Amino acid sequence: MSNIAYIPGDGIGEEVTRQGIKVLEYLDNAYNLGLKFEKFDLGAERYLKTGDILPDDVLNKLETFDSIYLGAVGDPRVEPGILEKGILLKLRFYFDQYVNLRPIKLYKEEFSPLKGKGIKDIDFTVVRENTEGIYAGIGGFLKKDTPDEVATQEMISTRKGVDRVIKYAFEYAQEFGREPKLTVCDKSNVLTYAHNLWQRSFKEMGKNYPDVEQNHFLVDAITMKMVRNPEIFDVIVTCNIFGDIITDLGAEIQGGMGMAVSGNINPESISMFEPVHGSAPDIAGQNIANPLAAVLAAGMMLRELGHGNLTPKVEEAVKDALENNMVTSDQGGDLSTDEVGDYLVQNLKSKE
Amino acid sequence: MSNIAYIPGDGIGEEVTRQGIKVLEYLDNAYNLGLKFEKFDLGAERYLKTGDILPDDVLNKLETFDSIYLGAVGDPRVEPGILEKGILLKLRFYFDQYVNLRPIKLYKEEFSPLKGKGIKDIDFTVVRENTEGIYAGIGGFLKKDTPDEVATQEMISTRKGVDRVIKYAFEYAQEFGREPKLTVCDKSNVLTYAHNLWQRSFKEMGKNYPDVEQNHFLVDAITMKMVRNPEIFDVIVTCNIFGDIITDLGAEIQGGMGMAVSGNINPESISMFEPVHGSAPDIAGQNIANPLAAVLAAGMMLRELGHGNLTPKVEEAVKDALENNMVTSDQGGDLSTDEVGDYLVQNLKSKE
Ligand SMILES: CC(C)[C@H](C(=O)O)[C@@H](O)C(=O)O
Ligand SMILES: CC(C)[C@H](C(=O)O)[C@@H](O)C(=O)O
Repeated sequence: MSNIAYIPGDGIGEEVTRQGIKVLEYLDNAYNLGLKFEKFDLGAERYLKTGDILPDDVLNKLETFDSIYLGAVGDPRVEPGILEKGILLKLRFYFDQYVNLRPIKLYKEEFSPLKGKGIKDIDFTVVRENTEGIYAGIGGFLKKDTPDEVATQEMISTRKGVDRVIKYAFEYAQEFGREPKLTVCDKSNVLTYAHNLWQRSFKEMGKNYPDVEQNHFLVDAITMKMVRNPEIFDVIVTCNIFGDIITDLGAEIQGGMGMAVSGNINPESISMFEPVHGSAPDIAGQNIANPLAAVLAAGMMLRELGHGNLTPKVEEAVKDALENNMVTSDQGGDLSTDEVGDYLVQNLKSKE
Repeated sequence: MSNIAYIPGDGIGEEVTRQGIKVLEYLDNAYNLGLKFEKFDLGAERYLKTGDILPDDVLNKLETFDSIYLGAVGDPRVEPGILEKGILLKLRFYFDQYVNLRPIKLYKEEFSPLKGKGIKDIDFTVVRENTEGIYAGIGGFLKKDTPDEVATQEMISTRKGVDRVIKYAFEYAQEFGREPKLTVCDKSNVLTYAHNLWQRSFKEMGKNYPDVEQNHFLVDAITMKMVRNPEIFDVIVTCNIFGDIITDLGAEIQGGMGMAVSGNINPESISMFEPVHGSAPDIAGQNIANPLAAVLAAGMMLRELGHGNLTPKVEEAVKDALENNMVTSDQGGDLSTDEVGDYLVQNLKSKE
């Protein structure tokens, strides 16, 4: 039995996650998973009507669930940042989802902007620290709005916070790396406090994983390698802000936001899964949005709910959709959002 | 009259900057520039022999020069970071070189790792703040080396520091942009103190430049755009750490470190110019290192010394070298480092 809180959110969030739910419901039936869904309306509509972003009673209710499945938040009528911070970041911090898991996987060679790189070359995972670093929200202003103004923003790393995400990354590399190999990405040559801690944590934790190959890249160098030699990576672990940057770069080399998935994971508690793309208000409600990332997010959630055997099945179905051009127009097909979802279910069914 | 302090540094630094000096000496003769060079030996050799990295008497002496021309620092016998911080960062901060100017310019289509992007598409400049932000070096440890350890690293932005680099960027966009267009890159949706200051500075400064098109990208989004649509950029202004990251990504899309140039500029005082590549100890002393970035750095220095008319001439000579394959083996040619320098001088001569 798993209770899934389902937050479609804004714009295309509703229609793309509907396809994810479709796939989940099919698998639930076929494999007796005992999934239950409950929908929560959070997002721009609610905020504009009531002023509520994420009220306490909703937070308390969410605590009783096993997992959260999120569509997208953001609306042109709301100042950028408000909903992202008030819902997305809030949930990450509140549920202490200390791992942001971002697979960088190219499904179709022509999607990548990189010359000569195929699906074998672009297939790694970024494990981003998701609850501290410069996302702590700590800082301030001195003499604001004067020529002498000083603004500070604190990057805070705790040994506990860094240790646990590095441990997760090592274990992920052991279980899911093509080869067991973990790269730590930091700027330890300049961030001599916060990233010195990262260095020490990585080295010490690494002693427990002698079977995992271990190496280090500075963040500036890693962006170069990601576009020149992405094939050298298996699992990368990094801090919150660098993770933010390199996972978006990664999303682009894997073919853009249409395929990028994000798991906000607390292995001991409630995790949250979402497509990386935004709410795309310009195409919302037209049944033309690409649902593949939302479906892959649902697939990733299954692993966290203890059905890891089904995650690759979902990925295979998505791969088939791409190969058979059963996709939306942004990916070169002519199906509607709903039709893509239907195809995926049929595809899964046909393989039983 | 211009006095140039010349710091070849480590590894290939000596042989590549020798070609830059060759080109400068030729132009000096041809155009009566009155350039004088004095060599300073800083780097690993000196550090290993004497323990000195950048002694005060050298710093004082450097103050009497008009410009600094640097090769590369770094040596496998010295712990990474020591020389970079002790020489490179030290000079940037000491001389308050608040602009790091990094042209991202593709000279030859096949050098880029990006599909379908030609030399017209990859041609923009990053103006990186170079003296503050998270490079301030401020932070500390609490309960170091215990499980309860906390490490902090402070990002500090001052209104004065941000205003001046944004002003520089606007003026650079006016003078050198393909069209006058300036993009600010930050993470203002999360760094609600430090990058809120950036936002306000950009908006207010922008009022003085109504002829310059102005837009904004979050740092995560900009890395995506840089690999998918680099043609949309003309001049980008950003903070120290994001500048570090996106300029290296930029170096890669323009064909790798072999062509990347960095100007550390204090418009009112002493600036420093360097190729971005490292000291490459493995190929040092063999006369095979690619000198083009070092030569381009010399060309960029000429502009700062008041000979901006000569900078494009140097760039043209480099372009000719590439077109005629008068380059080193890493770029597909078979010339030695020295021969490339000689070719560039001949090429410049032939155009008088
Ligand atoms: C929306 C924003 C606050 C968020 C972040 O910076 O973490 C997003 O970019 C992401 O990567 O999920
Ligand atoms: C060597 C290092 C300290 C330096 C930096 O981070 O600024 C380098 O990466 C650069 O971009 O010039």
